[in-house]
Amino acid sequence: MQTLNVGLIGYKFMGKAHSNAWRQADKFFDLKARPNLKVICGRTESDLRVAAERMGWSEISTDWRKVVADPTIDIIDVTTANDTHAEIAIAALNAGKAVLCEKPLGLSVAECKRMVQVAKKSGCVHMICHNYRRIPALAQAQRMIQSGDLGEIYHYRARYLQDWPADPNFPLVWRLQGKIAGSGAHGDIHAHIIDLGRFLVGEFAEVSGLLHTFIKERPLAAQSDGVSAKAGVKMGKVTVDDTAMCMVRFCNGAIGNLEATRFALGRKNGIQIEINGSKGSLYFDFEDMNRLKFYNNQDPADRRGFRDILVTDATHPYAGAWWPPGHIIGYEHTFTHTIADFVNAVAEDKPVSPDFVDGLRNQQILEAVEKSSKLRRWVSVPKILSWIP
Amino acid sequence: MQTLNVGLIGYKFMGKAHSNAWRQADKFFDLKARPNLKVICGRTESDLRVAAERMGWSEISTDWRKVVADPTIDIIDVTTANDTHAEIAIAALNAGKAVLCEKPLGLSVAECKRMVQVAKKSGCVHMICHNYRRIPALAQAQRMIQSGDLGEIYHYRARYLQDWPADPNFPLVWRLQGKIAGSGAHGDIHAHIIDLGRFLVGEFAEVSGLLHTFIKERPLAAQSDGVSAKAGVKMGKVTVDDTAMCMVRFCNGAIGNLEATRFALGRKNGIQIEINGSKGSLYFDFEDMNRLKFYNNQDPADRRGFRDILVTDATHPYAGAWWPPGHIIGYEHTFTHTIADFVNAVAEDKPVSPDFVDGLRNQQILEAVEKSSKLRRWVSVPKILSWIP
Amino acid sequence: MQTLNVGLIGYKFMGKAHSNAWRQADKFFDLKARPNLKVICGRTESDLRVAAERMGWSEISTDWRKVVADPTIDIIDVTTANDTHAEIAIAALNAGKAVLCEKPLGLSVAECKRMVQVAKKSGCVHMICHNYRRIPALAQAQRMIQSGDLGEIYHYRARYLQDWPADPNFPLVWRLQGKIAGSGAHGDIHAHIIDLGRFLVGEFAEVSGLLHTFIKERPLAAQSDGVSAKAGVKMGKVTVDDTAMCMVRFCNGAIGNLEATRFALGRKNGIQIEINGSKGSLYFDFEDMNRLKFYNNQDPADRRGFRDILVTDATHPYAGAWWPPGHIIGYEHTFTHTIADFVNAVAEDKPVSPDFVDGLRNQQILEAVEKSSKLRRWVSVPKILSWIP
Amino acid sequence: MQTLNVGLIGYKFMGKAHSNAWRQADKFFDLKARPNLKVICGRTESDLRVAAERMGWSEISTDWRKVVADPTIDIIDVTTANDTHAEIAIAALNAGKAVLCEKPLGLSVAECKRMVQVAKKSGCVHMICHNYRRIPALAQAQRMIQSGDLGEIYHYRARYLQDWPADPNFPLVWRLQGKIAGSGAHGDIHAHIIDLGRFLVGEFAEVSGLLHTFIKERPLAAQSDGVSAKAGVKMGKVTVDDTAMCMVRFCNGAIGNLEATRFALGRKNGIQIEINGSKGSLYFDFEDMNRLKFYNNQDPADRRGFRDILVTDATHPYAGAWWPPGHIIGYEHTFTHTIADFVNAVAEDKPVSPDFVDGLRNQQILEAVEKSSKLRRWVSVPKILSWIP
Repeated sequence: MQTLNVGLIGYKFMGKAHSNAWRQADKFFDLKARPNLKVICGRTESDLRVAAERMGWSEISTDWRKVVADPTIDIIDVTTANDTHAEIAIAALNAGKAVLCEKPLGLSVAECKRMVQVAKKSGCVHMICHNYRRIPALAQAQRMIQSGDLGEIYHYRARYLQDWPADPNFPLVWRLQGKIAGSGAHGDIHAHIIDLGRFLVGEFAEVSGLLHTFIKERPLAAQSDGVSAKAGVKMGKVTVDDTAMCMVRFCNGAIGNLEATRFALGRKNGIQIEINGSKGSLYFDFEDMNRLKFYNNQDPADRRGFRDILVTDATHPYAGAWWPPGHIIGYEHTFTHTIADFVNAVAEDKPVSPDFVDGLRNQQILEAVEKSSKLRRWVSVPKILSWIP
Repeated sequence: MQTLNVGLIGYKFMGKAHSNAWRQADKFFDLKARPNLKVICGRTESDLRVAAERMGWSEISTDWRKVVADPTIDIIDVTTANDTHAEIAIAALNAGKAVLCEKPLGLSVAECKRMVQVAKKSGCVHMICHNYRRIPALAQAQRMIQSGDLGEIYHYRARYLQDWPADPNFPLVWRLQGKIAGSGAHGDIHAHIIDLGRFLVGEFAEVSGLLHTFIKERPLAAQSDGVSAKAGVKMGKVTVDDTAMCMVRFCNGAIGNLEATRFALGRKNGIQIEINGSKGSLYFDFEDMNRLKFYNNQDPADRRGFRDILVTDATHPYAGAWWPPGHIIGYEHTFTHTIADFVNAVAEDKPVSPDFVDGLRNQQILEAVEKSSKLRRWVSVPKILSWIP
Repeated sequence: MQTLNVGLIGYKFMGKAHSNAWRQADKFFDLKARPNLKVICGRTESDLRVAAERMGWSEISTDWRKVVADPTIDIIDVTTANDTHAEIAIAALNAGKAVLCEKPLGLSVAECKRMVQVAKKSGCVHMICHNYRRIPALAQAQRMIQSGDLGEIYHYRARYLQDWPADPNFPLVWRLQGKIAGSGAHGDIHAHIIDLGRFLVGEFAEVSGLLHTFIKERPLAAQSDGVSAKAGVKMGKVTVDDTAMCMVRFCNGAIGNLEATRFALGRKNGIQIEINGSKGSLYFDFEDMNRLKFYNNQDPADRRGFRDILVTDATHPYAGAWWPPGHIIGYEHTFTHTIADFVNAVAEDKPVSPDFVDGLRNQQILEAVEKSSKLRRWVSVPKILSWIP
Repeated sequence: MQTLNVGLIGYKFMGKAHSNAWRQADKFFDLKARPNLKVICGRTESDLRVAAERMGWSEISTDWRKVVADPTIDIIDVTTANDTHAEIAIAALNAGKAVLCEKPLGLSVAECKRMVQVAKKSGCVHMICHNYRRIPALAQAQRMIQSGDLGEIYHYRARYLQDWPADPNFPLVWRLQGKIAGSGAHGDIHAHIIDLGRFLVGEFAEVSGLLHTFIKERPLAAQSDGVSAKAGVKMGKVTVDDTAMCMVRFCNGAIGNLEATRFALGRKNGIQIEINGSKGSLYFDFEDMNRLKFYNNQDPADRRGFRDILVTDATHPYAGAWWPPGHIIGYEHTFTHTIADFVNAVAEDKPVSPDFVDGLRNQQILEAVEKSSKLRRWVSVPKILSWIP
């Protein structure tokens, strides 16, 4: 069996999640090639050495350009800071590597367009890591919608709820600084439910959006527990949004209502999605990610109700590779599913979804929402671009 | 339309619940006769006068014998202390009245047998108020089991969970004194899930039971909040069971597991019932009484899950009389349903279920469980009696 | 004790719900006056006679003007078609009656303003029946927010979800015709979560709204089950919105996201409300109306979680009047609570909330949302009017 | 850092789960030694070669005696058929290896006693793999009970519910044959909730048990879907129990009610545990394994309710090693936690819990329940043995 040598650029949170998936994919799935965790790449050699050992990589490198240029490398996996995605991915594609890129694809529509152009020209396999598409419950949801179980779609109602900076005394970490983070809840988590809307329902036609920052100033460093910011505490300005939401008209006539926030105390990583169609409804919450609720209006009138489907059966997407029914899986498995499909696509040199075009579409919608929030009116999302080869 | 004059004996908790039902039944159901709240009867005239006004009765009486003897009275409703049920009900039946009797029917199997004999001989309509049978969700459950939706029944798993005396400092109220209350959790709440087992699954063949008292001594009077019983506090002996449970073999081969307790903190009036059959399962919890969960093994493999049926549709038992779908009803409505059916039975002089024989069967099972707990071994429940006319 | 004679105008769905509340209020609450169900008024005498009997009213009348003029009447309860509220309520106030008016107060802001002016001038007690404010769980929520349990409010997230016309073959009933119904989901159910937003969070500053009709044409009459509209079936135009939603900026800085739809299959009467603050969160769903979920960020870190509060305790609003803890109540009880508070206000000649000003505010917001939907941009909600005496 | 060479005996379901844990433990936990997946051992060389590759083992062996005798091996992990546990574990202990043994420890109390004696004499680290003790939610539950959050324990209520052979046409697989499987639901899943009862509440004093087989005959081979066993289909006898349950008196005065069944349609791997004490209650369901429900009776009266704790916080047991709060984990992680603790114990030569004595205690209770089921009366569980060195 063919071996595919992987170079992972980046080794923080996403590096940890991707590494686990690279290690685990061929332990549970019958892949068409064997991934080899060849080299992990970052800036600080000492940290990198620890990471390589901890995450199972054979070699380390502090120069991503060398990794990208290395002829023995087949795949480049980009999990670095957002502002470096474009440069690394483009170099890798130009070097003929298959590329898996963490979200966001790039920092702007302009940057994403360049990445798509290079990807198209290169003929290489390219994928963006929107791992939530491969939660078995959501893959099952998409399968059911495609097969017509819900009929015509009316509503897409999605929330992404977190709570980590909800306390006004939480300090001004880098994620709350626009220069470093790019954006707040909008790019970080709103982007996910925008992608899932495209995956489950279809293309966005226009949006009316709102971005808002609740806490405008925060302590520069962590304060002692529960103590309010006092005289003498140095404060800094929060320069990202705390919450982002939008109303949406989809091209197919469905209506969307999306909301992302970091200020929903008690919701740790809640992704609550409800889809209503003319024949049925679906409901999902990521905090309960092994379940999918399905209301089938075709059931007899006195026996109708949301079915609580435990998506752990061999008949469900991805689930059969793991454990018997009822033995649930977790967050990390969504990356393993993504990488399993990516490896198969690379092995067969076939396209895989979501790809860089999906990354670009996501960015177009994000920018439309931002523009709408500024202009305080509805804004159209650009049509799918005919210039894409 | 015929008017049926009602005499209610007793005006405490059950008197309040029955009165409400008598008032409401013909406001929501098309009854075959009109109930008239004629007289309410109790021992203390001053309290009774307040109760009559509050609960909507035209007259009061402090002598139940006079009420029973009154030729204008058609129905006697018995909600008095448990040790008076037999005497009043028998007198009423002998006077040719239709009788609705609160549970328990009597204090012993012997007493219940006499009541059944008189009821059978009298030819009057007789009913025991096991109101939980007329929760729409449970009436729907029974309908589904009868129609074969669950196939052959394997398991009846029932809990009745309360928590009011779980704090060891809770005082020795009358319900915890055997002389007054007769029994504890066993007769009070275990009796309900025993009745529901007979309603939903069938007759009990044999039981292995356990009765237990956790807190053997309690303060005679209420202590100040949260304070442990201290030196100087007068203590008294708890003479009823705190919890009662049993394993059951049903006549039809099903297996039961029942448990009732007053020591489940956080469970206020939880009646949790699960029934598993060869084709499907049902789940119910009284704290969420407008819902019935139904697992249908005939659904396609990847779309199976417990359906969360909101039992408020016009196609569901009793629900159509009330409000539109999704507008839930509550505890008191179960009495209204009971009395609506009772009134119709009396108007048409037809039998209604559950009747005094069901009250007797319940008592036979209660005593079998007590005997089993004492003997520490399995005990048979008597067969249905052939002597019943 | 004083008796208050009530004249009920209207006897359909809301008439049934109000009648029940008038009958039941003094059976469970210690009122400061006794309501007497004196006269029920409508147009069709035969139907009215049945309704009076069924709903417990002593007299009937087919002329609301006579009822309003009747000096023995103390209270006028208006549950007629929306386009008659203003005329009847104004006449009643001018006749010195206390007035309870179903929602909507009037058909337009202009009409509502006139009603408020008359109400203020009359000195009579006036109330609008937004009964959902008196669900015990929501009254408890408001109490907790007022007492600071949630800290500063960030988010108000509310859904009102129904499904009755989601099937495209559902016929063109009057509620789907603008001329008769005034509006669709917007005025019918969006209005409720707008009112609850004002009740729980505060005044609305500005809105960005969307009204949409999914099914533009429907069969004029009900078709046989499941059959698609075929050639030959006469179709008519739907002239109301199927869904209405808005993003909101509250005056106090909170952000709202509201959505009402009749196209959410499986949601019968779902009112899902989540409020996030700096110290905690609350969640409520009307289909589970006896429960309130509360996340308290002050709990120890490893013991935090949404508390599932069964709002049936004597310490909770209204609950003590009914049954012991865990014995749940239903939809109709919210009207009983409303009328109990209204009777007490009338007896003591004191203001009660929500009143006609709340009805006006609701209408102002509804119109702002409509305007925003048409203009496709944010629209300000008028400030509270200084001209109100 | 020290390396510990591991020999895994067995490569089926449990072999897969253990292998994953051996691979993953040092990727997420800071272990005190590094486990090396040296050799995997089984009977069929071809299958074994595939398994070694798939599961990450360096070498294969078809002779467990050689593996046990190999001086380079530090740890023997036993996941073979139940009837071989004793022989392998004893040989490994005698060879001075640390031993991790899958449940059951042995086939009988007699066999378990011998294993305990050898383990004690050997001075080696020994552990039984009751992995469910290391579900973060249950580890948290035990921590809370130990710290007194629940006060005195009254009730342990546990269900283990599966449904795979609930269809009477399901064929007579090896797990339903006593000769091969030893026992049915009793040894397979009842054993787990017995172990959790000891872990969470304490030692069992006496039991009243019931074992039952619903379907006494089954087709010898799988029949075509949904077809009833027909004339001509060869049937065989089911020789294990389908369900096992018991009532329990714990030594500390708590009362237990346990039930395990394979006949609960819709319950795939439901382990539902409720514990009620004098100060609070806990609830857990394995199908929702990242959550723990906690009722705290010390909360203010109107704010009490079961808290829905998402056990994914860094303050919770094991959770901090994985992902941020709200990013859930699954079934396989319980093995990783077990093996992480085992590796640390071996590295430091310290005892670890649960050990072989816990395996023996479990077997003693299983046999007491079987005896009780046969004798149809209560049976005492032996006291903790004084002869253990």
